[in-house]
Amino acid sequence: MQSSIVRELLKLTEKPDLISFAGGLPAPEVFPVEQFREAADQVLKQFGAQSLQYSTTEGCARLRGMIARHTARFGIVVQPENILITSGSQQALDLLGKVFLDPGDRVIVERPTYLGALQAWNAYQCEFLGIAMDDDGMRTDDLDPALRRGSKFVYALPNFQNPSGVTMSLRRREHLVAMAEQYGTPIIEDDPYGQLRYEGEHLPSLYVIDARNREAGRPGGNVIYLSTFSKTLAPGLRLGWVVAPVEVIQKLVLAKQGTDLHTGTFVQMVAYELAHGGFLDKHVHHIRSVYGIRRNAILAALERHMPRGVRWTRPQGGLFIWAVLPEGLDAADLLREAIKEKVAFVPGQPFFDDGSGRNTMRLNFSNASPEMIAEGIARLGGVIRRALENPPAPAREGA
Amino acid sequence: MQSSIVRELLKLTEKPDLISFAGGLPAPEVFPVEQFREAADQVLKQFGAQSLQYSTTEGCARLRGMIARHTARFGIVVQPENILITSGSQQALDLLGKVFLDPGDRVIVERPTYLGALQAWNAYQCEFLGIAMDDDGMRTDDLDPALRRGSKFVYALPNFQNPSGVTMSLRRREHLVAMAEQYGTPIIEDDPYGQLRYEGEHLPSLYVIDARNREAGRPGGNVIYLSTFSKTLAPGLRLGWVVAPVEVIQKLVLAKQGTDLHTGTFVQMVAYELAHGGFLDKHVHHIRSVYGIRRNAILAALERHMPRGVRWTRPQGGLFIWAVLPEGLDAADLLREAIKEKVAFVPGQPFFDDGSGRNTMRLNFSNASPEMIAEGIARLGGVIRRALENPPAPAREGA
Repeated sequence: MQSSIVRELLKLTEKPDLISFAGGLPAPEVFPVEQFREAADQVLKQFGAQSLQYSTTEGCARLRGMIARHTARFGIVVQPENILITSGSQQALDLLGKVFLDPGDRVIVERPTYLGALQAWNAYQCEFLGIAMDDDGMRTDDLDPALRRGSKFVYALPNFQNPSGVTMSLRRREHLVAMAEQYGTPIIEDDPYGQLRYEGEHLPSLYVIDARNREAGRPGGNVIYLSTFSKTLAPGLRLGWVVAPVEVIQKLVLAKQGTDLHTGTFVQMVAYELAHGGFLDKHVHHIRSVYGIRRNAILAALERHMPRGVRWTRPQGGLFIWAVLPEGLDAADLLREAIKEKVAFVPGQPFFDDGSGRNTMRLNFSNASPEMIAEGIARLGGVIRRALENPPAPAREGA
Repeated sequence: MQSSIVRELLKLTEKPDLISFAGGLPAPEVFPVEQFREAADQVLKQFGAQSLQYSTTEGCARLRGMIARHTARFGIVVQPENILITSGSQQALDLLGKVFLDPGDRVIVERPTYLGALQAWNAYQCEFLGIAMDDDGMRTDDLDPALRRGSKFVYALPNFQNPSGVTMSLRRREHLVAMAEQYGTPIIEDDPYGQLRYEGEHLPSLYVIDARNREAGRPGGNVIYLSTFSKTLAPGLRLGWVVAPVEVIQKLVLAKQGTDLHTGTFVQMVAYELAHGGFLDKHVHHIRSVYGIRRNAILAALERHMPRGVRWTRPQGGLFIWAVLPEGLDAADLLREAIKEKVAFVPGQPFFDDGSGRNTMRLNFSNASPEMIAEGIARLGGVIRRALENPPAPAREGA
């Protein structure tokens, strides 16, 4: 049901005259199309049939090596053996569920959290324990009762979270890692946007904090780290990765073998060809400048057009802003009106494990120009203003 | 455990001086590398960023349309809405398990059957009911007790089965469809090799027989059909598809969304660009001629080099021959000796749901030249002959 809403919404984003803050689409105008042409050509010239043949479940060795070197610069110092290439980081979530979750198992999530994680793990019939968030991220002071009940893992998106745009503070990160260590509960750290920071200082990842603890003689080894090329190169490749201890990687490899044998050889080699040798850094720099301007544009437009009583986050990076409407407004009702005015967003409720959040919405700012953003937010402000002036009739039962 | 054997074997196939009948690798020299270069270039030129962006879970519309037109020529007359693009047909198996199997559910399989299906569905904790095979395929006369016990579905590979190379006779196909219809048990028909026939007449697929029954006023609608581009274009793309009633496709789409969002946009568009307009037919014709020669070479070499008491199948198509050794020989023990002689195969036991088949082996003939095949089978014949002359000491307990 939740996923069908989002799917229908994604279809709407294809209408050319609609300004969409729905979806999580990167801006197509930043995709390095010409460089992809060169890389695809080079791979087929140089490696020919090898790039079209079956390959290992773990992923292409050179790509894993490149990722290991790349993540080392952010303090995640690992070997290629600690890396599994996945078919997007969505598949990493699925494989982790397949390997670790049995029906009835508990999983601690941020409230709200990434919808795709709820979808992936719902399939394994787990129970979610949601921890509320504030402007510093997951309220780790609330973790103790949830950890005490026994959970298979804690799922967290510390950087520019999807959907909220919130960044977890350093103090909270350290607290989360310490709490998880105390209970021996693994953390799954999902970091698709970590490199897309537009202001403020890079904060150490949970993985890095855990690794430092380990170096200081504490247990550690507790964090499984996920990332992806979807936001830095192109999502249509479906290339993500898991960083984890070798024993965990081996379990995930067995699960992946039964799931899709391996991730496409050709796209892995094209991604390596494109990204190695410094292009990725330059390109990420470019993306940051484009998205930073768009973030500023949406914040300015919200300030200008949102009626009183609407609150929103001010993300330091990533792709999303989270808006909270006055109590009593239902974002799903509002969406129907918004679509009539040729503007779209994602209602927030599907991101809540407990079905709350009816008066919330997620606004993606990466996929429209600053001018379109200003126009879209003006339209949306009007829709919300009218809803506040003329509260809609109560929804029909069962609708 | 089973999968780790096969994975270790796949690693062996990379040693250049070893002649490998292991794996199921298509011949890299038939991959249309130049045409792929042109297609990749054309897609990026013509569609640019669209080919690198997220796309729908169902798969790219034009590719689904092309597959619908293509399968219609083999009597499978469906709409694009009946087709889901998957990340290889291994993913189709996983998604079917995810949607349909609960722990303890029964699945009827051929004995032996495709190892990847056993792996995919083991993850969902089902119970397998194996049906013995002979030269006409699954012994459908044995189906009644298994169907009577209640099974979620019957899994069959009617054409040039992996691993046995056996083709199910028309009479058996009709019987299987009629039996499944009688019990209302769906059939999953896996057809990766159907187009790779080197002799004899094309037989109607289970899907077509079922559709004819439906046209004749019987219930039908009972067959889910799987195929792939892995054997006709290139396996490194990871592109397969499911043909099923729309209600089934919708369930699979929801499951796929949580599993990997969608199959790669770029490779789908490249496959369409490459395959539409008649290239696929011409290319399959070429593959058939190359593989047909290799099948003849391996049959001739087996005739010449195998000691008395070894039996093997004579496949009319596909990639595999199945050999049965005299009772008492263990193919896994033999493999260790074979590797010393620089030749490899896959021991047959992992393909059996019940752990039988220790004296069987699968021989792939698509991935070596006729000369290499002759040399490899000569080496293998020598290994088997020596084993028959000097029976190995009994395997250590627990080894």
